[in-house]
Order: sequence, then structure tokens, then C-alpha cells
Amino acid sequence: MKYLLLLTYDGTDFAGWQKQPRKRTVQGVLEEAASALFRAPVKVTASGRTDAGVHALGQVAEFFREEETIPPEKVMFALNGLLPADVRVRRSGRAPEGFDCSRSAKRKTYIYSAYFSAAASPLAGRYAARLPAEPSAARMREAAELLVGKHDFAAFRASGYSSRTSEREIESVEIEECRKESITFYRIRVTGNGFLYNMVRILAGELFAVGCGKEEGITRAFREKERSALAGTMPPQGLLLEKVDYGVPLFGTEE
Amino acid sequence: MKYLLLLTYDGTDFAGWQKQPRKRTVQGVLEEAASALFRAPVKVTASGRTDAGVHALGQVAEFFREEETIPPEKVMFALNGLLPADVRVRRSGRAPEGFDCSRSAKRKTYIYSAYFSAAASPLAGRYAARLPAEPSAARMREAAELLVGKHDFAAFRASGYSSRTSEREIESVEIEECRKESITFYRIRVTGNGFLYNMVRILAGELFAVGCGKEEGITRAFREKERSALAGTMPPQGLLLEKVDYGVPLFGTEE
Repeated sequence: MKYLLLLTYDGTDFAGWQKQPRKRTVQGVLEEAASALFRAPVKVTASGRTDAGVHALGQVAEFFREEETIPPEKVMFALNGLLPADVRVRRSGRAPEGFDCSRSAKRKTYIYSAYFSAAASPLAGRYAARLPAEPSAARMREAAELLVGKHDFAAFRASGYSSRTSEREIESVEIEECRKESITFYRIRVTGNGFLYNMVRILAGELFAVGCGKEEGITRAFREKERSALAGTMPPQGLLLEKVDYGVPLFGTEE
Repeated sequence: MKYLLLLTYDGTDFAGWQKQPRKRTVQGVLEEAASALFRAPVKVTASGRTDAGVHALGQVAEFFREEETIPPEKVMFALNGLLPADVRVRRSGRAPEGFDCSRSAKRKTYIYSAYFSAAASPLAGRYAARLPAEPSAARMREAAELLVGKHDFAAFRASGYSSRTSEREIESVEIEECRKESITFYRIRVTGNGFLYNMVRILAGELFAVGCGKEEGITRAFREKERSALAGTMPPQGLLLEKVDYGVPLFGTEE
């Protein structure tokens, strides 16, 4: 049977999701905790990897056990007792028949957070990137409209990476702007059926650049599939995997 | 002449404001940066100390120099180039005649943040304390009313500490509640003419406890001046010094 986990983590002190020798990773600490709990090696997989420094509010992960020795909804308490403070299991349960937390995912939502202020803000900076200028949210929203729909996002991918297809469908891109003290905060919330490597950080970089006056490069990026049509990749600490949607409730009604 | 600084810092990795041998403190890193900048020992003092783990959005600090070798409004850029990322100078300027950033303070505002959720939240936990139960904001607001006004806050002080007088005046206590995903966030925003050692963390602890069903102890605390009338002290990471008000604008119009 498959155990399912709804996870939240602060990516600051992790070298990303994927296990690596001699590095502190989310998968690494989870497998260590789960293996200690079940007194046997446990391999944990996620809906997708997150990069070093990237945070998650609703990552979904799973692991297989021959027998249900611990009630699925209780596993969260046991694991939380063994995990370091920067990873927490928000819910646990049993996976539906034939479920695969990566392949069964219907859509994902990411939030990219950034701020503009005269001086860098140590309080904002842990979960947001600092912008070099103050973008116009109206101009960002206009450019964001171009992203919505089914497109070949080949240009929105870190160079050197490939996958079977680079066609993805973006359902919505919402831009929030909020002024507080002398800081302006921006949130880009993007939902789609899948994302290429660095895709959210690249599209966020392009939207912020367009908001700051750069010529819009999205149209050309779709046409020419050239990474160079777009602005730079935003840094990881502004990125949050908000949720993964499977089209069915996985952890009971409250989720 | 006196240089003035408006500071923000993330208290997580500091042993508080006050300089201590072999510990990383906010005063310590600021004096190191200022001394490097002016090529002479510089002593920096603040409107008040903050404890280990406590954050600041608008701490005010000052230091004395015989001569104005660097324009006051430029000092922020020079210092920010020398400071670690978890402290930033938001503004700098020249202090008015006779100004003392501790004695001239008219009022201070602190925010205490906490949250309730089934599992601890690593993303919320850096700047908020986790509550063991879900308090009623209505009951908290009722108890908060008792705090407003001029009172002898002797019971609202860490035991073993004393000061000339323990009478303080609280101007306002605002309670905000906000539900997001499966987490309920609480913010207590308190403004007063001064605060005793641990006073905000103690009053926050009492308000949360009353919200969770504890019998209100504020009335008895004022009468008997016994720390034991009140609930436990809240942990430092939920506390933020939001601003210090001097009754006059210190850093030009924009502040």
C-alpha cells in the first residue's frame, strides 16, 4: 500500500528536494525519518522536485509499504516527531488505487514573491526576491495574459535541460501588488498542468522585467523558442510550491 | 554630531541587540561596520535592546562622530555595503539637537505573531510562535481592553528584573485574526509609551491563554503585582519591534 504525505518545508537550508550524497535535502531527511519509523529502508518520492532554496506549502509525496503497520492518518504525527523543524507533514493518508503522486497530478500552483524597496529587507528576503526597480503591476498583468493557454514553453526552460515535450498549459496567472511601509510586495500566482525546469522563475523574471519597462519577449519566445528572448531567471528563495491538484480530495474533506 | 539609523533585522541568528563577547549581536555587527566605515571605533546605541531571536522592522539607533565626514543620508548605503544580509539600514540621517534615541522615544509599537494549526508550520515558524490550541479572538480583544491605559505593569515583567518605575501607559492593543489554508494566524499589535523587560511577550501569552479559555488574570495582576497571576511568556521569534515614535519625523517626509 502507498502512504501519502502533504508536506510543507522551508527551503532555505536544503539543497533542494532530491537526495544527494553529503547534502541536506528534503527527500534525504524524509527518508531518514520514515526509515527510522518503519525500521526498514523507505524511499520517498514527490510530485516533482524542488530546487535548492525553493519552499513548499503543499508538496505531495508518497512511499510504499507491504503492510499497513501504522494507520495512514497517524503517520504524520510519528514523522513530525522525527523530522527537523523546517519540514512538516500537514496531512497523511492512504493513496487511492493506482495513484502516483507525480503522474496523477492534474495541475500545480506556484507563487513567486518579490519586493521592491530602497534598501534590501532582511525580514522580507527569506521568502521573496528583491527587485532592482519598481515594476508596474498593470503592465505585468497585460504580459501575463499572453502566457495563459496551451503553448510550447521551450524558451521558458533552463538551457541544457530537455523533456519529452515542452508543451504545457497555463490556466491562470494572477499578479498581486501590495504596499506596506516603504516596501512594495508582488506575488505572481501561476497554475498550470505542468512546468518545465526553472519555468516559473523564468516567467516571473520576464514579467517583472516587462513591468520595469523591458520590451515584452513572450511572443517572440513562443515563436522562436529562444531562451534569450526572455529576461533573467529569478532566484530560488522567492519560489513556493503552493499546491498540487489531483482532481480528487486526497486527505479527507478538510483539505 | 549624531548620526541616526532606521534599522530592520531578522533576529533569528542574533543573540539579541546588546554586544556580548564571542556572540553575534546586532550592536556588534553594526559597530564593526561603522568602525570599518569611519576607520575609528564607533559605539552604536539603540532606542532599546531586543532579546535573542526578536526581530525589528523599525529599530532606531544612533552614533556620535566629531565631524560629519560622510553625509548623514548617505551613511545607509555605505553601511549596507558592509553589513550582513540579516541587518539593513532603511534610512539614515542627522539627529535633531539634543536628541537621544532611547530617552526621546515617545512611544513604541510591537507586533506579536502566532499561529495555530494541526502541524507546526516551518514557513510560518520563523516569525511566529505556534499555539497549542485555537484561541477566540473575541475573548482576546475583551481581555486586551483591560490593558489599555496607565497601569503598574510590575507583574508583566520577567522576574529578577527591575526598573525605576513599573508604571507604563498602553495606548492601544489590536488583535488581528486571519485564516489561510489550514492555519489561523494571530497578530497582537501593541503601542505604549514604554515596555518592561519581556512585557510584550508576557501580555501576549496572557491574551492567547485567555483566548483559549484560561481565566483572565490581568485584573489580579494589576492588583497583586504577581507574575504568577499571568500565563507563560511567549517565545522570542514571534516578537517584532515595528516602530519607535519620537513625535517628530526623523528621516524626512517619506518615513
